[in-house]
Amino acid sequence: MMTKKFEEKTITSESIYKGKIIDVRVDDVELPNGQSSKRELIDHPGAVAIIAITDENKIVMVEQYRKALEKSIIEIPAGKLEPGEKPEITAKRELEEETGYQADTLDYVVSYYTSPGFANEIIYVYEARGLMKVEDALEGDDDEFVELMEVTLDEALQLIKEQRIHDAKTIHAIYYLMQQEG
Amino acid sequence: MMTKKFEEKTITSESIYKGKIIDVRVDDVELPNGQSSKRELIDHPGAVAIIAITDENKIVMVEQYRKALEKSIIEIPAGKLEPGEKPEITAKRELEEETGYQADTLDYVVSYYTSPGFANEIIYVYEARGLMKVEDALEGDDDEFVELMEVTLDEALQLIKEQRIHDAKTIHAIYYLMQQEG
Repeated sequence: MMTKKFEEKTITSESIYKGKIIDVRVDDVELPNGQSSKRELIDHPGAVAIIAITDENKIVMVEQYRKALEKSIIEIPAGKLEPGEKPEITAKRELEEETGYQADTLDYVVSYYTSPGFANEIIYVYEARGLMKVEDALEGDDDEFVELMEVTLDEALQLIKEQRIHDAKTIHAIYYLMQQEG
Repeated sequence: MMTKKFEEKTITSESIYKGKIIDVRVDDVELPNGQSSKRELIDHPGAVAIIAITDENKIVMVEQYRKALEKSIIEIPAGKLEPGEKPEITAKRELEEETGYQADTLDYVVSYYTSPGFANEIIYVYEARGLMKVEDALEGDDDEFVELMEVTLDEALQLIKEQRIHDAKTIHAIYYLMQQEG
């Protein structure tokens, strides 16, 4: 089967760390040529990201500090899946928690793995339109500090140049919107 | 400074694992509200990806097994930075190793973090044109098995639908090319 080409069979799997968000393991694998190698792997629950467009045709963004990068960047709203949660439900929840918006329409766009070389994190991307501010919106996790922004496509392109937008999902979203606008 | 907004100061940092490709650590951080939280973090050396276009206007792709996903996917050529290596050098090397091509022109496109919530992996993206097959091309790592493909933009869009192209960098590359072609 095409999707199993060059399969690497697991010989042993060693759990290194079980965390709140990620698990780490090292697998010994048998390569297609019969030799063996090690694979350092991260298990992640998966996430959603939301391309949310206001009635004024602005893109909803959040600025937040990313400890892994030791800087704040501007991203489209996103969040992790809870165990067993359908991505569409996560998307609605995260949109409301991070931005205070509910959407009239929430359409699936695409899904992708972020770092297939070492992690199984998948992001399900949705497009939200018909945004309305909610009174008493859901609140986010108490260790998340985000600042809401709404930017035009031109402003977003400038933010990419300045590397204040600097992550794959947000840059993909902006190219997707350019494509939509033809 | 804007890029330090909501900074999370490190209180303690615990090394969990030092691997061949990734290191894992857990940081205790002080949040902007004075409370503390834990951050599970992956250190990664960074990588390059190459949008390589043949004279027949086809996109050069490689199919390879991704242990983290337990399936084979089709991606643009990519590879990790060696310590101290300039991304442009890595891009030339990986293009030749994975595809057997050298390029007349290699232009920087953009860079982005793949998973800013937990990893500092950054990808530097280059566009390669004027491709020529090299005799006695550099050979890749001996634990890498890849199969070369060359696809049109329409074929690439179909491969996204079939989820045989299923990672962020390759999907970004295809949107980038659609944008280029107007």
